[in-house]
Amino acid sequence: MATSVSVETLNPKVLRCEYAVRGEIAIHAQHLLQQLERQPGSLPFDEILFCNIGNPQSFGQKPITFFREVLALCDHPNLLDREETKSLFSTDAITRAKKILAQIPGRATGAYSHSQGIKGLRDEIAAGIASRDGFPANADDIFLTNGASPGVHMMMQLLIRNDRDGIMCPIPQYSLYSASIALHGGALVPYYLDESSGWGLEISELKKQLEDARSKGIAVRALVVINPGNPTGQVCSYMYDVTRELSISSFFWGVHQPQVYQENIYVTNKKFNSFKKIVRSMGYNGVDLRLVSFQSVSKGYYGECGKRGGYMEVTGFSTTVREQLYKIASVNLCSNITGQILASLVMNPPKAGDASYDLYEVEKDSILESLARRAKAMVFAFNGIDGITCNKTEGAMYLLPRIHLPQKAIEAASAVNKAPDVFYARRLLDTTGIVVTPGSGFGQVAGTWHLRFTILPPEEKIPSIISRFREFHEEFMAQYRD
Amino acid sequence: MATSVSVETLNPKVLRCEYAVRGEIAIHAQHLLQQLERQPGSLPFDEILFCNIGNPQSFGQKPITFFREVLALCDHPNLLDREETKSLFSTDAITRAKKILAQIPGRATGAYSHSQGIKGLRDEIAAGIASRDGFPANADDIFLTNGASPGVHMMMQLLIRNDRDGIMCPIPQYSLYSASIALHGGALVPYYLDESSGWGLEISELKKQLEDARSKGIAVRALVVINPGNPTGQVCSYMYDVTRELSISSFFWGVHQPQVYQENIYVTNKKFNSFKKIVRSMGYNGVDLRLVSFQSVSKGYYGECGKRGGYMEVTGFSTTVREQLYKIASVNLCSNITGQILASLVMNPPKAGDASYDLYEVEKDSILESLARRAKAMVFAFNGIDGITCNKTEGAMYLLPRIHLPQKAIEAASAVNKAPDVFYARRLLDTTGIVVTPGSGFGQVAGTWHLRFTILPPEEKIPSIISRFREFHEEFMAQYRD
Repeated sequence: MATSVSVETLNPKVLRCEYAVRGEIAIHAQHLLQQLERQPGSLPFDEILFCNIGNPQSFGQKPITFFREVLALCDHPNLLDREETKSLFSTDAITRAKKILAQIPGRATGAYSHSQGIKGLRDEIAAGIASRDGFPANADDIFLTNGASPGVHMMMQLLIRNDRDGIMCPIPQYSLYSASIALHGGALVPYYLDESSGWGLEISELKKQLEDARSKGIAVRALVVINPGNPTGQVCSYMYDVTRELSISSFFWGVHQPQVYQENIYVTNKKFNSFKKIVRSMGYNGVDLRLVSFQSVSKGYYGECGKRGGYMEVTGFSTTVREQLYKIASVNLCSNITGQILASLVMNPPKAGDASYDLYEVEKDSILESLARRAKAMVFAFNGIDGITCNKTEGAMYLLPRIHLPQKAIEAASAVNKAPDVFYARRLLDTTGIVVTPGSGFGQVAGTWHLRFTILPPEEKIPSIISRFREFHEEFMAQYRD
Repeated sequence: MATSVSVETLNPKVLRCEYAVRGEIAIHAQHLLQQLERQPGSLPFDEILFCNIGNPQSFGQKPITFFREVLALCDHPNLLDREETKSLFSTDAITRAKKILAQIPGRATGAYSHSQGIKGLRDEIAAGIASRDGFPANADDIFLTNGASPGVHMMMQLLIRNDRDGIMCPIPQYSLYSASIALHGGALVPYYLDESSGWGLEISELKKQLEDARSKGIAVRALVVINPGNPTGQVCSYMYDVTRELSISSFFWGVHQPQVYQENIYVTNKKFNSFKKIVRSMGYNGVDLRLVSFQSVSKGYYGECGKRGGYMEVTGFSTTVREQLYKIASVNLCSNITGQILASLVMNPPKAGDASYDLYEVEKDSILESLARRAKAMVFAFNGIDGITCNKTEGAMYLLPRIHLPQKAIEAASAVNKAPDVFYARRLLDTTGIVVTPGSGFGQVAGTWHLRFTILPPEEKIPSIISRFREFHEEFMAQYRD
């Protein structure tokens, strides 16, 4: 009956959970940052370059003006009664703020909302989804959340009973999924994306892994699809086949994260299709596939990570299951209202003819075009370095170059009890100040090693990042050459 | 290997979890609200009076002007460059917004922060705690959270391994604790507050329950103290004895929620002392008691529930345990920045001499004085109704009158498979539109029945609420008289 609080007596699920994006390398980077502040000049570099996390505004990306105008007015509605406000805010921001306040009972942005979020805002979001997909969406299916992560946790909590319940995840996958599965005590059933075909999703691989899991007695309860890919950056264009071939509806539903990066598409030969649109297009005799789609205000061109806004759209579940989901949502009362408002804004941005439209378009296009240029430049540069290969970033905010490490480097890593990519990333950080997330945090084919870079550093800094990286890489490879 | 998603195959911990505050009565009230909107006049009342949830701004309580000015400026920092802003915002709000923005790397309120929250804001909060308690506080001990609830979940997740791990909770307790313990699969070890002594905490009861739990093989891992009480409204003034008598430090730590209602004290003979202050005063040879204190921007005089701001202060744990807590916090990246800013503001409000100080004092005092009057009026009224007794509300936002139900009412409830207080509350809602939370959602001594009322309805409405309630109660009691 051990009761003392020590690591040995903590919940073992917590101990097993790993979260690479904020793991060893990220924590060490924070320490170096503090050291630079305390003792400038004490390190071989003068700034830390956080290429490890999709956090656009931390790199100086400016928020969309219209969104922030509306938020400020909703935070302090007294402004709407003042004459000066007309010269400080665009007319459509004022109109929108008034509309949103009218949708909130008592205009009270400081009150708890309905557990799923403010009904009027969910109506706006449903209309935005319907207009995107060409299929109806229902406010009752929307659960507003503090970013996308809490929605993922809620679904894991709902579905995972024990370690015989499996969730199929792509490998490499965003570490939220593996962390959440570990915290809820389930089994991660991997399906490997094919690096040689640009991180393609192969139906044969899905089938093989599914059968393998079942043969071990694992009940596969959900399929996670991340599109555009994180950390892999591919855009998946053939969901249709996946759902049909696996006849998903008969035995499981798909957790899916299609929308988080839905605006972040950098190639012209592919476009974003929501999984819901594909599913609805398939008909299924009018019976919806069980599907949960996650959206977040953290990504897209807006990149409002700190606002913690997002939603999940939940379709195809029975009323009794939905009631259980509602109950879990209720235990945390509601998501933050600022994030709720922002989620409604990104799904209903200014339209042609609105006073803010031109500025909005300029801001949006400039961000997306710059991201596309950065993605292209970084992929090109990585592929020009010996011992590195890198698939194209078609979408999202990441690229995942493969580092072909010599055996001696792998042995040196093993000698200090580290995964080779962690060993490499730590050395990279200590030498250059560049922070990346090692591929082992996302999973990778055994014997291959990767690093996740975001494409977010400012364009003017990319050449120097690349050259610092190249110089480090060449020295590292020379040191450990077989 | 059941894989179909139905209630039968969901996580049984979710099924076991109950959350009374948003349970059956609250859901039914939402349906009635919709019915009133669709078909005015179709019910025996023309408005729903939500006395079931501590949500001050939903009752028209206005936010503190200074706080909202700062939030608006931080949401849209471009305003700080404009001349008109000087006439729209108080000078100290402008100064504070600039200070806060300077504390945020890159002035980016849209960026993810450190997993524990922005360091500069944690410094402000630590200074506020130190100034309140007279003992130092450390920014590294602060975890900013989306309201207080996620912090409670994190601690439960960290500590609960299985159903042999127990958390001691007061009965009646705020349903977050029972819900979170159920979701994490632990055991709730009750200790009963003594209604006859104004919901007093008796050390003999704590000892008895602790020994009882241990004799059943339960490892008691935490003691939850809610002060001021929710749902019970008492102010606990003798923590010292509790901690000393149970020699807590030797075997468990205390989850504690002292600060959420720290400003909401309505009696003059008691004052709020934080558990941390008491613990530090005790010395313990310089070794801190393991203590987690939760604060939220949702309560106090500010009542900013929708902003989802809060923090926990974590002291006395080893570095390795703290690292695990940091990891859990990291999986959700960070809490929302608006809530983070607000948490720093409530811990460092305007001071004498600041431009906003006079207005701030007027706003704050008017809210707190009105709450005190409402608490007194409601307690007085309840005690004047036959078959009802009600302890004084010394703090927080609630009162928990006991309804002395006749046997026939208990049998009528049993016939429709409901707890007697749920049966009563449902009838109250259907007859009067008054929404309360039945005491069985919080736990109560077997055979006693209670209702939780908030003291939040506007003062001018309280007489009519009381008279509607009294009329209903008298009819109900007449119908079921033994």
